[in-house]
Amino acid sequence: MNRPELSRPPITGEAQSFFAVEYEPATGEVVMLDQRLLPGQVVYHRYTKPDEVAAGIRDMVVRGAPAIGISAAYALAQLARNERGDAKMFLVANGVASRKLNETRPTAVNLAWAIARMSKRAAEVAALHPDERAAAMQAEAEAIHREDVEACKEMGALGAKDVPDGATILTHCNAGALATGGYGTALGVIRAAHEGGKSIRVLASETRPYLQGARLTSWELHTDGIPVEVITDNMAGHFFQKGEIDFVVVGSDRVCANGDVANKIGTYTHAVMADAHSVPFTVAAPWSTVDLRCAEGAQVPIEQRSREEVARVGERVLVADGIGCRHPAFDVTPARLVGALYTERGSVRPRDGETPGALISRE
Amino acid sequence: MNRPELSRPPITGEAQSFFAVEYEPATGEVVMLDQRLLPGQVVYHRYTKPDEVAAGIRDMVVRGAPAIGISAAYALAQLARNERGDAKMFLVANGVASRKLNETRPTAVNLAWAIARMSKRAAEVAALHPDERAAAMQAEAEAIHREDVEACKEMGALGAKDVPDGATILTHCNAGALATGGYGTALGVIRAAHEGGKSIRVLASETRPYLQGARLTSWELHTDGIPVEVITDNMAGHFFQKGEIDFVVVGSDRVCANGDVANKIGTYTHAVMADAHSVPFTVAAPWSTVDLRCAEGAQVPIEQRSREEVARVGERVLVADGIGCRHPAFDVTPARLVGALYTERGSVRPRDGETPGALISRE
Repeated sequence: MNRPELSRPPITGEAQSFFAVEYEPATGEVVMLDQRLLPGQVVYHRYTKPDEVAAGIRDMVVRGAPAIGISAAYALAQLARNERGDAKMFLVANGVASRKLNETRPTAVNLAWAIARMSKRAAEVAALHPDERAAAMQAEAEAIHREDVEACKEMGALGAKDVPDGATILTHCNAGALATGGYGTALGVIRAAHEGGKSIRVLASETRPYLQGARLTSWELHTDGIPVEVITDNMAGHFFQKGEIDFVVVGSDRVCANGDVANKIGTYTHAVMADAHSVPFTVAAPWSTVDLRCAEGAQVPIEQRSREEVARVGERVLVADGIGCRHPAFDVTPARLVGALYTERGSVRPRDGETPGALISRE
Repeated sequence: MNRPELSRPPITGEAQSFFAVEYEPATGEVVMLDQRLLPGQVVYHRYTKPDEVAAGIRDMVVRGAPAIGISAAYALAQLARNERGDAKMFLVANGVASRKLNETRPTAVNLAWAIARMSKRAAEVAALHPDERAAAMQAEAEAIHREDVEACKEMGALGAKDVPDGATILTHCNAGALATGGYGTALGVIRAAHEGGKSIRVLASETRPYLQGARLTSWELHTDGIPVEVITDNMAGHFFQKGEIDFVVVGSDRVCANGDVANKIGTYTHAVMADAHSVPFTVAAPWSTVDLRCAEGAQVPIEQRSREEVARVGERVLVADGIGCRHPAFDVTPARLVGALYTERGSVRPRDGETPGALISRE
C-alpha cells in the first residue's frame, strides 16, 4: 500500500495499512491520501502550506467529517510552525487561515469544532517563543487526532454490542478509517463487531454521485478482510424487502440537539426504508459531530455541489450538456428514525425520545 | 438527430426526432438506435439476421419492455422474409429463433407476449407462399408496433388527468419513446400532460447502474422541450422530504394479476418514499405488460446482471477488482403502494384493491 514513513508512529495506528491524514513533525508537512484516486491509485500528497490543505479539503482529496477536522487542525499546526512573527501577527495569520479552512465545506460541524479548538489554543500560546508556540499547536492537533481514534474505538465497541451475530449490515458513504483519524465511526462499529468474533458481512451502497461506498468503503473493508459487497443505492430497498439486511449503521456530519442527523445524501432514504422493514437504523459519530447549538435538522446548511459531479464519471458524460442536475450533498434523517446514536460518551436512542444532550456531562 | 430514412413513414410517428426500433420493408432490416451510446452518440444499427436482433436485445442496444417486444416481433418478420422453405421448415426456424429471442431477457413479459403472438400468426400462415407468409408476418409485427404507439397515447391521456397543474413529477429509468414503439408509457403520461397545457417539470432519477434516467430520459424530454433535471437515485428521498415532488409515474416490465408491479431496480424504493410522504405513485403500461398468469410479484423472475455493470462506468473502475457486487436489475412494488395503473384499456387503483383483471373485457 506504500503507506508513507513518518518520523514518529502514525497516530492513525499501525493496524491500518493506509491513513487519510497525518502530520510529519520533522518537516511540517500535512500528508494526505488522495481519496479521489481510490481505488485505482494510492497517492499521498505532502502539503507545506495551509492554503494547500484548505484546497485539499474543498476538492475532496480528504473527506469525512472527523478527517477534515483533523486536517484543518494540522493545517493550523503547520501555520504555527511557519509563522515566526509576534503574538499579534501569529493570531492574525491564524485567524485568516481559520476562516479559509472553515469556508471549504459547510455541512460537517467537526471542521468548525476543530478550528475553534485550535484557535482557543492559539490565543493561549500566542505570546510564547515561536518554537514553543509551534510545539503547543502541534501537540493540540495531535491530541485532536489521537482523541478521534480513541473515540472511534469506544463508539465502535458500544455499537458492536447491538450488531446481531450473523448480521448483514448496510452502510452508506464512507465513515471509516478514511473518513476519520483512524478505525472509523460506522466502520468502527463494523470493525469492532468483526474483531469481537461476530460473523458479519457488509453491503456497501455505492453513494452516488461521489461513490465513496463503491470506491472507499469496499476497498477499506476488503483490505481489512471484512466480507463486503457493493450495491447501487437504489438496490437497498430490494434487499430490505428480501429480508437480507439486518442492521444499518452510518456516520454523520452533524448531529442536532434534538437527535436529527445530517449525513451524506441518501442516508434519509435508507433510514425510511429501514423503518418500513423494521430494521435497526443507527448512527456512530464522535462528540465533536454533535452540535448542540443546532436545534434541529432544518437549521443544518446543506452543501450544494456542482452539476458536473452528477453529470460525469471520469471522462464519461452521463447527462447531455444543457440539461440541469441537482446536487444536494447531504440530507437530514429525523430523530424519530434513529434507533441509536453511538458516541465515545455513550449512546442515546433518539427514536425513543433520548437526545444527545443527555451525554454532555459524561467524558 | 440523423433519424434514418425508411421506405415508409416511421410507425413511431413523425413527432419524435428519433426512434428505438423500426423495420425497413425494402431490405428486411431491423433498424435500431444504440441506446448504450446515448447521449454522447446517436448511432443506428441495421440488423439483417434475427440472431443479431437477439444479441441487440441481450446486450441492451435496445431496452424497455415494449420496445424489446417490438424488436423481437420484427426479428421474426425478418426471419419470415429470409426463410423460403416449406411450412415445416418455416415453423422450425421460427421456433428456434423464438426460443433464442425469448431467452435474452427474463423479466419483461412483453417479450414473451410479442413472440407468442407472432408464433400464433406463423402457424396460421405457414402454408402460404413464402412471399405472402412474409408479408403477413411483417404486417403482424407492424400491427404490434402500431398498437403499442396507440396504447401509449391512450394511457398517456388517462394518466395526464391525474397530474396536477404545476406538478414536479419524479420518474425512474426510461419508460419513454426509447422504451416503446413511440411516445412512451410513463413519459407518455408526462408528454400528454405537457401537450395538454399543464405546466410541469420532471425530476429524472439517474437509474444506476445503467443510467437510463440520466442518459435517456433526460435526453428524450429535453429533446422534446419538456423541463427536466437529473438527480441521483438517492436524492429522491431528500426532495420528497422537502415537498418538491408532487407525482410519481414509472413504467413496468410485468404487472401481476394482484397488481404487484415489477420494474427497474429502485422503483420499489421510490414507491415506499412516495407513500411515506403521501405523494401519488402511479404506473403506466400497455396491456401486453399485464401477466394475469403471474399471480403476484414473488413469481416474477428477477434478472441478475453482471458485476461489471455496477463496478465500472465506461473505462472508470468504481469498485476494486476482487470485491463482489450484487446486481438485481428489477424489483417488485406491491399493489398496496400503486395508486393507479394506466393502460390503454383504462385504469385501475391497485392500492384500493382493484386488480388489472377488471380491465380484461375492455378493448
